Amino acid sequence: MRKLFLIITLISLFSNLTTAFAQEQSSKPKQFVHTVFFWLKNPDDQSARASFEKSLTTFINNSKFIQTKHLGVPAATNRDVIDRSYTYCLSLTFRSKADQDKYQAEDLHLVFIKESESLWKKVLVYDSESIL
Amino acid sequence: MRKLFLIITLISLFSNLTTAFAQEQSSKPKQFVHTVFFWLKNPDDQSARASFEKSLTTFINNSKFIQTKHLGVPAATNRDVIDRSYTYCLSLTFRSKADQDKYQAEDLHLVFIKESESLWKKVLVYDSESIL
Repeated sequence: MRKLFLIITLISLFSNLTTAFAQEQSSKPKQFVHTVFFWLKNPDDQSARASFEKSLTTFINNSKFIQTKHLGVPAATNRDVIDRSYTYCLSLTFRSKADQDKYQAEDLHLVFIKESESLWKKVLVYDSESIL
Repeated sequence: MRKLFLIITLISLFSNLTTAFAQEQSSKPKQFVHTVFFWLKNPDDQSARASFEKSLTTFINNSKFIQTKHLGVPAATNRDVIDRSYTYCLSLTFRSKADQDKYQAEDLHLVFIKESESLWKKVLVYDSESIL
């Protein structure tokens, strides 16, 4: 009788644990990657580049919601499938879509756009939510 | 005389430190972000998706050179500048271009391509090296 009680207790405990784990999995925020490519109107204009970089780094260095950040330029790699026509790549990660939504509305973001939008001719954004 | 000696010593020390700092900066490897978008031929085919995801995650979970990884699908965001037509986004970071070059040549990478290339109709790659 004591053994049966022990077995039932263990089964109940295991069941609760797996339910809790499933809930944790389903409620776990999905990492959000926000990738932005900028094509400047005059990519060879060093003064325009310096202005853009200063404005953007001031923003991303002070945003409250960014998890990790990367600001880069086309790498030296060159294959048929690679697009290296852009001027700048901004790749940001956020803990969740909610954080990215807040980042979009930050005052510093609006300042950056106001300061720099006259410098670019095209912006292309890819937003992705993790499935891992 | 002793004061002069002290000043010269301090100037020399400062000069050495700034030279060392400049060398450190210039030799520091630049973070490399490798962003790949896949458009599957049949994005609604759940069996094709499962096969692709299994093949790709087996590779990226076992690569020796990846620093951070993100595999995702289009987020719910939707603005004019956002391209959400792709099926999968793979965003990988590497400590350097050299690491990414080694990743390209990994056996597991070649296995993934062989297993999965019949599933996609288009691949688009953006490689970026950090300027921060």
